[in-house]
Amino acid sequence: MNQIEAALQGKITPEMEMISRTERVSVETIQQGVRAGRIVIPKNNRREVRKPCAIGAGLRTKVNANLGTSPDDCDENKELRKLKAAMEAGADAVMDLSTGGDLRRIRRAIIGECYVPLGSVPIYECASDAMRAGRHTSDLSGDEILGAVELHARDGVDFVTVHCGVTFSVMEQARKLSRVTDVVSRGGAILLEWMHANGRENPLYERFDDLLDISRKYDLTLSLGDGMRPGCLADANDAAQFGELLVIGELVRRARAAGVQAMVEGPGHVPLHLVEANVTIEKSTCDGAPFYVLGPLVTDVAPGYDHIVGAIGGALAAAKGADFLCYVTASEHLRLPSEEDVWEGVMASRIAAHAADIAKGLPGAADWDRDMSTARCALAWEKELSLAMDPERAKSFRASSPPRDPEFCTMCSEFCAMKKSAPVFRTKS
Amino acid sequence: MNQIEAALQGKITPEMEMISRTERVSVETIQQGVRAGRIVIPKNNRREVRKPCAIGAGLRTKVNANLGTSPDDCDENKELRKLKAAMEAGADAVMDLSTGGDLRRIRRAIIGECYVPLGSVPIYECASDAMRAGRHTSDLSGDEILGAVELHARDGVDFVTVHCGVTFSVMEQARKLSRVTDVVSRGGAILLEWMHANGRENPLYERFDDLLDISRKYDLTLSLGDGMRPGCLADANDAAQFGELLVIGELVRRARAAGVQAMVEGPGHVPLHLVEANVTIEKSTCDGAPFYVLGPLVTDVAPGYDHIVGAIGGALAAAKGADFLCYVTASEHLRLPSEEDVWEGVMASRIAAHAADIAKGLPGAADWDRDMSTARCALAWEKELSLAMDPERAKSFRASSPPRDPEFCTMCSEFCAMKKSAPVFRTKS
Repeated sequence: MNQIEAALQGKITPEMEMISRTERVSVETIQQGVRAGRIVIPKNNRREVRKPCAIGAGLRTKVNANLGTSPDDCDENKELRKLKAAMEAGADAVMDLSTGGDLRRIRRAIIGECYVPLGSVPIYECASDAMRAGRHTSDLSGDEILGAVELHARDGVDFVTVHCGVTFSVMEQARKLSRVTDVVSRGGAILLEWMHANGRENPLYERFDDLLDISRKYDLTLSLGDGMRPGCLADANDAAQFGELLVIGELVRRARAAGVQAMVEGPGHVPLHLVEANVTIEKSTCDGAPFYVLGPLVTDVAPGYDHIVGAIGGALAAAKGADFLCYVTASEHLRLPSEEDVWEGVMASRIAAHAADIAKGLPGAADWDRDMSTARCALAWEKELSLAMDPERAKSFRASSPPRDPEFCTMCSEFCAMKKSAPVFRTKS
Repeated sequence: MNQIEAALQGKITPEMEMISRTERVSVETIQQGVRAGRIVIPKNNRREVRKPCAIGAGLRTKVNANLGTSPDDCDENKELRKLKAAMEAGADAVMDLSTGGDLRRIRRAIIGECYVPLGSVPIYECASDAMRAGRHTSDLSGDEILGAVELHARDGVDFVTVHCGVTFSVMEQARKLSRVTDVVSRGGAILLEWMHANGRENPLYERFDDLLDISRKYDLTLSLGDGMRPGCLADANDAAQFGELLVIGELVRRARAAGVQAMVEGPGHVPLHLVEANVTIEKSTCDGAPFYVLGPLVTDVAPGYDHIVGAIGGALAAAKGADFLCYVTASEHLRLPSEEDVWEGVMASRIAAHAADIAKGLPGAADWDRDMSTARCALAWEKELSLAMDPERAKSFRASSPPRDPEFCTMCSEFCAMKKSAPVFRTKS
């Protein structure tokens, strides 16, 4: 039984049960959230997900890691290593965004090893097929585009990005603007090119009911992609972005009415002072649907460090209510990410998510920090290192610079402030 | 002539002149800010500073990098390499926090090569001298503590951290609290231990007028240190922290009345939702004095990644009005930072500072981002790479993964959204 169907009938699915144990919320809270559409549980009903998760209001902020080949860098084994790195680093979900090589084989290999929810962007596959066959992507038929979604669902994908909100009218509005970076969404660009060439409506919008039928069949969660997301600070929060968001809000309501789980994708590149507005406007226009942001990146000028740029934006977005952070890696804007980029990217986003969970006042979120700090003040190094978000990294840093006295570290040695001040505070007068 | 003296007499110093050219503000704005104490120009009147800077209201957010040996890791050449790395990475100021080796020699070597404002914490030196001589730091005399400040000023240090606000009464208040990490400021801990052992007032508070005399003599900027800064999220924004801040506010007013430049140091470890309060309370209780924050770190659990944790807190603090960000490196809580840590730490803080400057609406701050994005959309790779905050990093990432077609990168290859959507947007119908 699909998650939303169960929730509507007052039933508890095994996933709701598992998730309530890891989230410190009651199973009823999750059930009610799924029923109202404020929580999604991305899980294909034909696939086992060993570590499922729920995304949305009142829950821990989740982190997604993007994987996948490109025509220029296409190594299935490397992608499997990146998958392993992402899951071990603690990603709550991953997306296979492959566009190079045998997409079906790569996806199936990833699904075989992926124990967290897996997302994909099906239009990449029919676009890739068309390009290899020497066809233009604008010659794709609506059936081919919808067919790619069904193929992914049948393979077991748990959530798909579908750029249904890039309508013909959104495109016409956007063309009147003078954007600095036009469009930076690959799926969005393919569909805009298609509409522009054919003079017809976006098939994913026009045939949204067919998409809902496929989704219901597999309990596929729709991640309503933002084809018009800003690709630079100068384009942030413009009429094209919010015009598309209003369409997405309409589609969220249609999905809910059809018993299909839906979340909403957000930007992108957004200056710090405009981040909060993105969250509040998404929540109000999309009736509280889970919000899945990419970064956001709070400056355009730091390629090579975009995991940090994205962590700043992500922390603020999540603190204000975003539910799901898509990581950005250090390689963004420069190359396909490496395995190391994946690891660091997941860590940066987990830091942002955790900092936000504390700010959101999530019950118990700050306990981890208190335990760490108690160990730190007691100079209980083993406990401190094992409590680190990345214990191996913490241990290797310490091991690389051994102090003479193991009570201290080489930063302060016997100048350790906690050690020196202990007699003042620990022996009360 | 000292900066504040010149400002009061309506004169323009060479530093004000230089700084107004790099800041895009009028020299009168800087002069008025210095006069009012809302801007400081840390520059010892006995030293040349090739790249001076001003810190405070209406100016670009500045970044400081901490350097210095410890008794466990004491290599003068390594510290000089770290100094070079910090300045080349773009730090606006550096602090020598050495506590190991021949402190005088190391400081003088650093001063000799340092072309940005240099700060220090003089109490480390008399504490180190005492400990080597087998004395307890609580046996230091007030003259020795003040003498260390004068020694640093005579050597040419531009600003000093002095923990004058940790008064006996602040200590007594703090002892009634149940802090998780007591005190994490080394200077603060030395003074608390001193007061506790001697049952007497903090000499840096008691003899603040003497400190002002030394400062005026050398135009030494006082950085009023927060000995009671929280060392973990659980201790943030508590009565000890704010009790000390109120004392610091009083000292800011005394410094201004005495013609001495002063700024205020802030935390430390602060959860995201409490960061803004730190800035607004500092600005109101310290009459708009420049605010110099350490991080802040928005979670305690990510040792090995604290440069990222600090960039999140720093971006938010600066966006809300903090003026000066002290970097935190990936090695924080684990070891003395390496040269690479210094580089990455400066970059992370510069990202935070720049993102905040855009959010603050600083004139021209977003131009860099617009230029970068224009180059990006034009696929003008050379320009894009040269505009990067760290061009070498960006170039090496791209070079490590060469695309078949140099127009693209290996992330998207021919799926490049900007390329695909250009015909839709660049040929208006």
